[in-house]
Amino acid sequence: MTEAVVSHPHFISLEGGEGAGKTSALAAIRDLLQARGFEVVVTREPGGTPLAERIRELLLNAKDEPLAPETELLLMFASRAQHVREVVRPALQRGAFVLSDRFTDSSYAYQGDGRGLDKAWIEALERRAVGLKPGLTLLLDLDVREGRARTAGRDLWPDRIESEQDDFFERVREGFRRRAAAELQRFRVIDAAQSPAQVAAAVSAAVSQWLDAPK
Amino acid sequence: MTEAVVSHPHFISLEGGEGAGKTSALAAIRDLLQARGFEVVVTREPGGTPLAERIRELLLNAKDEPLAPETELLLMFASRAQHVREVVRPALQRGAFVLSDRFTDSSYAYQGDGRGLDKAWIEALERRAVGLKPGLTLLLDLDVREGRARTAGRDLWPDRIESEQDDFFERVREGFRRRAAAELQRFRVIDAAQSPAQVAAAVSAAVSQWLDAPK
Repeated sequence: MTEAVVSHPHFISLEGGEGAGKTSALAAIRDLLQARGFEVVVTREPGGTPLAERIRELLLNAKDEPLAPETELLLMFASRAQHVREVVRPALQRGAFVLSDRFTDSSYAYQGDGRGLDKAWIEALERRAVGLKPGLTLLLDLDVREGRARTAGRDLWPDRIESEQDDFFERVREGFRRRAAAELQRFRVIDAAQSPAQVAAAVSAAVSQWLDAPK
Repeated sequence: MTEAVVSHPHFISLEGGEGAGKTSALAAIRDLLQARGFEVVVTREPGGTPLAERIRELLLNAKDEPLAPETELLLMFASRAQHVREVVRPALQRGAFVLSDRFTDSSYAYQGDGRGLDKAWIEALERRAVGLKPGLTLLLDLDVREGRARTAGRDLWPDRIESEQDDFFERVREGFRRRAAAELQRFRVIDAAQSPAQVAAAVSAAVSQWLDAPK
C-alpha cells in the first residue's frame, strides 16, 4: 500500500535555520493573507497541538540521556502526524490558509542530511504518517556562521539542537538547498542575508506572486 | 536497504493484557535467572529509560486531544528505539538477561490488530528502529472479561488505553494468539486463567525448559 503525498495550495511553510528572520517573515505573510480576506492559521513544528508541543519539549530538552537519531525522527513524525490531523487538515478543509514554521522538509534536512538517517525511511514516514505537503515553501537561506552570530545574543534557544556543531548545520543548509533545487515549483529561496524588513518584503512578494499565478 | 530483526537468546519478553498476572510472572522469572547466577535487567515498554518513560506519560495520559493511531504508533516506536539503544542492547552486550514487560509484539497487537494500522508499516518500523526481538516471549493469555474483572478494583490504570472497549481488547487478544501460533519457536502461551502462583510456576517451567534446551 503506497500513500501519496498531496500538496495543498492553501498550505505554506517556512524553512531555514535560526537567525534567518522566520518570525518577521511569518508575520508579513500572515498580514498579507489576512488583508486579502483569508482566515490564516499560524502554526509551527515540532508542535502545533497541545500534545505535539509536549513532544516538542521532549525533543528540545532531552537532557536525561543521548537522544538516538531514530528516536528524534520518530518523535518528529509523531508530532507531525498529530499536527496534520488536529490542525492542518481541519483548517484546510474549512478553507483557511495554514502557515507553518517548519514542516516535513525540516525532517529531511535535519534528521536526513544532518543526522544521516536514510531518506527512504523518511519518505515512508511522510507517506504513511503525513500524506500532505505545502503548496508553497519559502526557504530562508543564510550562511551558517551568520545565523549563529545573529542568534548568539538570544537566550531563546539554549536547547540541544541549537548547540550542535557548524558542520551539522552546513549539511542541513545544503540539504534544504538541494530540496529546493529539486522542487522548483514548490520552493522559493529567499536570501536571508538581507535585513529582516527586506526578507519580509521578499517573502511577501513571493507569496503575492504565487497567489496571483494561475494554478 | 533492509535491516534484519535478530533475536537474542538472553532477551525475554512478557506479553498479555492487564490482569493476566504479568507482575508476579516477571518476579518469578527474575528470581529464577538470578538463582542461576545471571545478571537480570527488568524493564518495561513503553518506557524503560527516563526519556522513554516521559513518552509513556504522553501515551497513557493523552487527555488534551484525540491521539491519532499513527501518533500512538510512532510514539511507541520512538520509546522503543530509545529503550533498545540505551538499555536492551547494552545489557545484552555485557552478557545480562533482559526481561521486558511488553515489547514489539504489543505494537502489532494493540496498534495493528487493535487500531487497524497496516502491519507492513509496523514491520518497517521494527526493522528500521528496533532490529532486535526476544529469543523467548511468554504470552499470558486471558479471557478479556476476566482480565477486566480482575483489574476493576485497581486504581493503577485509569488511563486511556485501559478505558477502551472490549471489542478492541478481543482484537488485541486474537492478534497476540495469531502471532504466537505463527512463531511457535519463540512464543510460549501460558493460560492466565490460573491463579497468579500457578501462572508464575508455569512461566518458570517454560523459562527453565527453554534455558536448558540446546540452542
